[in-house]
Amino acid sequence: MKKKELEEEGKKRYEDQKLERMETKQRNGEFIVPSVNQDRQNKEEYTVGYSQSSLIHLVGPSDCTLHGFVHGGVTMKLMDEVAGIVAARHCKTNIVTASVDAIDFHRKIKKGCIITISGRMTFTSNKSMEIEVFVDADTLVGDTQERYRAVSAYFTYVSLSKEGKPLPVPQLVIESEEEKKRFEEGKGRYLQTKAKRQAHMQSLTQQ
Amino acid sequence: MKKKELEEEGKKRYEDQKLERMETKQRNGEFIVPSVNQDRQNKEEYTVGYSQSSLIHLVGPSDCTLHGFVHGGVTMKLMDEVAGIVAARHCKTNIVTASVDAIDFHRKIKKGCIITISGRMTFTSNKSMEIEVFVDADTLVGDTQERYRAVSAYFTYVSLSKEGKPLPVPQLVIESEEEKKRFEEGKGRYLQTKAKRQAHMQSLTQQ
Amino acid sequence: MKKKELEEEGKKRYEDQKLERMETKQRNGEFIVPSVNQDRQNKEEYTVGYSQSSLIHLVGPSDCTLHGFVHGGVTMKLMDEVAGIVAARHCKTNIVTASVDAIDFHRKIKKGCIITISGRMTFTSNKSMEIEVFVDADTLVGDTQERYRAVSAYFTYVSLSKEGKPLPVPQLVIESEEEKKRFEEGKGRYLQTKAKRQAHMQSLTQQ
Amino acid sequence: MKKKELEEEGKKRYEDQKLERMETKQRNGEFIVPSVNQDRQNKEEYTVGYSQSSLIHLVGPSDCTLHGFVHGGVTMKLMDEVAGIVAARHCKTNIVTASVDAIDFHRKIKKGCIITISGRMTFTSNKSMEIEVFVDADTLVGDTQERYRAVSAYFTYVSLSKEGKPLPVPQLVIESEEEKKRFEEGKGRYLQTKAKRQAHMQSLTQQ
Amino acid sequence: MKKKELEEEGKKRYEDQKLERMETKQRNGEFIVPSVNQDRQNKEEYTVGYSQSSLIHLVGPSDCTLHGFVHGGVTMKLMDEVAGIVAARHCKTNIVTASVDAIDFHRKIKKGCIITISGRMTFTSNKSMEIEVFVDADTLVGDTQERYRAVSAYFTYVSLSKEGKPLPVPQLVIESEEEKKRFEEGKGRYLQTKAKRQAHMQSLTQQ
Amino acid sequence: MKKKELEEEGKKRYEDQKLERMETKQRNGEFIVPSVNQDRQNKEEYTVGYSQSSLIHLVGPSDCTLHGFVHGGVTMKLMDEVAGIVAARHCKTNIVTASVDAIDFHRKIKKGCIITISGRMTFTSNKSMEIEVFVDADTLVGDTQERYRAVSAYFTYVSLSKEGKPLPVPQLVIESEEEKKRFEEGKGRYLQTKAKRQAHMQSLTQQ
Repeated sequence: MKKKELEEEGKKRYEDQKLERMETKQRNGEFIVPSVNQDRQNKEEYTVGYSQSSLIHLVGPSDCTLHGFVHGGVTMKLMDEVAGIVAARHCKTNIVTASVDAIDFHRKIKKGCIITISGRMTFTSNKSMEIEVFVDADTLVGDTQERYRAVSAYFTYVSLSKEGKPLPVPQLVIESEEEKKRFEEGKGRYLQTKAKRQAHMQSLTQQ
Repeated sequence: MKKKELEEEGKKRYEDQKLERMETKQRNGEFIVPSVNQDRQNKEEYTVGYSQSSLIHLVGPSDCTLHGFVHGGVTMKLMDEVAGIVAARHCKTNIVTASVDAIDFHRKIKKGCIITISGRMTFTSNKSMEIEVFVDADTLVGDTQERYRAVSAYFTYVSLSKEGKPLPVPQLVIESEEEKKRFEEGKGRYLQTKAKRQAHMQSLTQQ
Repeated sequence: MKKKELEEEGKKRYEDQKLERMETKQRNGEFIVPSVNQDRQNKEEYTVGYSQSSLIHLVGPSDCTLHGFVHGGVTMKLMDEVAGIVAARHCKTNIVTASVDAIDFHRKIKKGCIITISGRMTFTSNKSMEIEVFVDADTLVGDTQERYRAVSAYFTYVSLSKEGKPLPVPQLVIESEEEKKRFEEGKGRYLQTKAKRQAHMQSLTQQ
Repeated sequence: MKKKELEEEGKKRYEDQKLERMETKQRNGEFIVPSVNQDRQNKEEYTVGYSQSSLIHLVGPSDCTLHGFVHGGVTMKLMDEVAGIVAARHCKTNIVTASVDAIDFHRKIKKGCIITISGRMTFTSNKSMEIEVFVDADTLVGDTQERYRAVSAYFTYVSLSKEGKPLPVPQLVIESEEEKKRFEEGKGRYLQTKAKRQAHMQSLTQQ
Repeated sequence: MKKKELEEEGKKRYEDQKLERMETKQRNGEFIVPSVNQDRQNKEEYTVGYSQSSLIHLVGPSDCTLHGFVHGGVTMKLMDEVAGIVAARHCKTNIVTASVDAIDFHRKIKKGCIITISGRMTFTSNKSMEIEVFVDADTLVGDTQERYRAVSAYFTYVSLSKEGKPLPVPQLVIESEEEKKRFEEGKGRYLQTKAKRQAHMQSLTQQ
Repeated sequence: MKKKELEEEGKKRYEDQKLERMETKQRNGEFIVPSVNQDRQNKEEYTVGYSQSSLIHLVGPSDCTLHGFVHGGVTMKLMDEVAGIVAARHCKTNIVTASVDAIDFHRKIKKGCIITISGRMTFTSNKSMEIEVFVDADTLVGDTQERYRAVSAYFTYVSLSKEGKPLPVPQLVIESEEEKKRFEEGKGRYLQTKAKRQAHMQSLTQQ
């Protein structure tokens, strides 16, 4: 074999090994492929845009009553899933549902609809986060195609340490007038709930 | 063969056939075996006791966060299941969740707990029913065994015809002072919610 | 500011802090709210009434065959859940199913029924517990409303240490003639099963 | 363009269309691809081999207790699934579980095991089928690899018309001495159960 | 009562009735509340932006192997859910998966990650749609927070009439150079698959 | 009491204790009951026959679209389950899906079908295993009973240590000409995929 061929072969072997290392790295999860959803990644941490999240769900038979309407409990479970992810993205810890504001099921959702559940953070206190959750329904298949708001509610979460103790919550960074307005409204709800709970506790301690 | 033996045999054949008919009936579901849970069956229709229901659930790994606390959404789904059965038992029609009052998760529930979800009807308007739902947790296995109230909330349901149109709801029959007190409180919540919704609608129509 | 106002303010601050501590306690799960289901709590430990449990379930599409009858396996799974909770409530340890007596599906259960699964302890040996489980079906919605016993069976559980080794079982405390009768019948089944197993083992060891 | 080229093109167009039709047929599910599992297909209808079935399942966290042993109810549900498929393959109708013989959980099954659930028909009466079901566990991953019989039981099914009425069951075709022996044993269990049920019914009718 | 009061009362009664009608409409699902996700609604039908969809999912214990990595099958099921919704949004009919291009699991996904599954349409032929699906993972909680592309693949769907027959697919409306490039690449994959299938069929018909 | 009786009694007590020990052993899972599925156990380790596996599944309502066809994602999840078990049986370690070759859904599968998913190993490289998976459908109940191949694909798995690092894979033992042919074809797919990935990586590193 000629010198040039040997060189070629050596070079090929080297590149094969290099690629094999990369491949092994990739398999082992050390190789970072550039990500696609640019939108959220461009957002600053702790802004509303950074943690907002949504999911779509096709309403199947096991989600529904015998007459083909979604069980309220199925919708609430999905709302808690989205809100919980918003909370976890914001504070990057384990979180747990503390309370849910009144939920109004404006309209029924039928089997076969596609529902979009979206959540965005509205308010943070020292130890809690409030997330607004919407459920929108698309009656995709059928004669009358429409899209409507089906449910909306406010979920409150607390952040927990590994031992399950409450942690301080990073404050929400406000970027627009609308976000500011929603923050103030959230603060109102927070103070009202706090007052109600204190009144309830005082009645308990005075018994 | 003697006469007596023939008689015996004929009788036996007759009884075999009779039993076979009964057996077939039973398999076909026409034979009614007396029921066991006497309590609820002795109650009059439309009373609180007639429709009240509960279920127990052992909190498993798929109900929980990574740190071993029950997801709020899992609890809400179970609460809706119990409340929905209370509503269906009362009006014997198809029902659907209309709204949920504020839910307070007083205390976290850990993996391995047994939870009891109980529901009882508190109030009926012409077209809706309010059901109070409790979640109680037992920390069965472990050093510190205790039982505590973890969550409580009010769920409102409407009754639907087969075509999905709202039906009138049979009025709740009140049997005690305590039930009357809860009915009045439910009525208060109902009127308050109604007023809030009307105010919201008026603001929409005036836009 | 006057002295009285300062006093008022100090007092208010003190109470705020006290409430905040209580609130934190409550969030952390240290605050004990009085429980509601009085019935079971008034029972003595190790009695039948102390551990008996039940759950309701609305039969949905994914529980059923294509012709709309509940799969036997779905019913058995729910029976094991209830019986397992009865066993765990009695011995407050980890438990595991050891055997199930013959199960007779007296009648079919249709989609849309509400089923009640109830379990009560009937017998304890040194190392095992027998629990009787009933399944009752309500054909709630529809023309012919009826309630009937659909299935019943005896489940046997053993108690396990954290290492998975069998533990002694606390003896059942008998409170009535009926409970005594059921205990004796359970003992009969236990001895019969034991004899059968010994015979089977002897045949194995003599091979 | 020359004549030959036109011919070539025409031929190609024709074949394209022919393939497109086949492709469409295939998409529509009219095209029959030869099947692979030759074993079962070579069996005559109504033999034991024709309907026998099995499934494997990797035991995951949601199948298990907190201490990592499979819930008895999970195993029973899988056993009913396999037995139900054996019954449906035999009589090609809708079927429903009628009864289950005593189930003995010989040994516990741990998280991470692979379990094989196998079912084979043992006996047919005029209106019922008996299926023997085995559960075998493989402790695949770990130091001590072993395979053992964990559970076994007999399930009885009835065949139903579309209206839910019982249908006659095609008789099992016996092909070996061993199958004959199992058939006779099944007949023994059938007659014993029948006698027990008749005795029970007589006691009910004489009350 | 004075005239003015009567007028007031009449007006109030009228408005109450009007609101009650609206409320009833709303409950019955006839009242259209303005929707929130403006983005997708502003898009023209049949564009890429109109049908693109995504969902988030928190990886729980029942999604994972014993060592805490997501099962490939769980990921594929979620990918099919998203791609199926994209296809249904595009052609507003019932759809079914026809094929999936090679799936490469670039990196493992761990328990506790949040995964985002996104789908966008890339190509339409007369009877099929190709959808590109991405899975991105966030290692939210923990020391090393990163986001990476874990899986990507192309799914092909066909549109079906109510009788299950294939329907023509509305052509994708291209709005940018990038979309055009992806369309051409999709066309390449389509033609290649078609040629491969034809070759396979020819070999079958020539046997 | 006479001597003989004492002897008898002593003997009986001894045997009772012996049986009790065996029984305890059995309960504790130390007693090995001979296994039934002889076929697989007679195979040598690392052969195709040793690890091949299959499962049956009755297609229920929650597996299907509204028009009653199985979701592609449901089928893929079952295929991954079977292929994963084949891989785990072969290398007796934790395994994870690395890639899936193109999946073609030849024919739709309807609600009520029984599907058989079968997997067999075709090829092993140093660090990966290829498994061929088939899905066959039986239209059991109904007028036109047929059995057909619905889906087939190749899945590739890697073996992982407890720390999640890749492990060498035991080489497949080939026993027949057909297995050898499949092995060579698998090798072809492996080298093709490897080349494609290297090309892709080179394009990434040269950017």
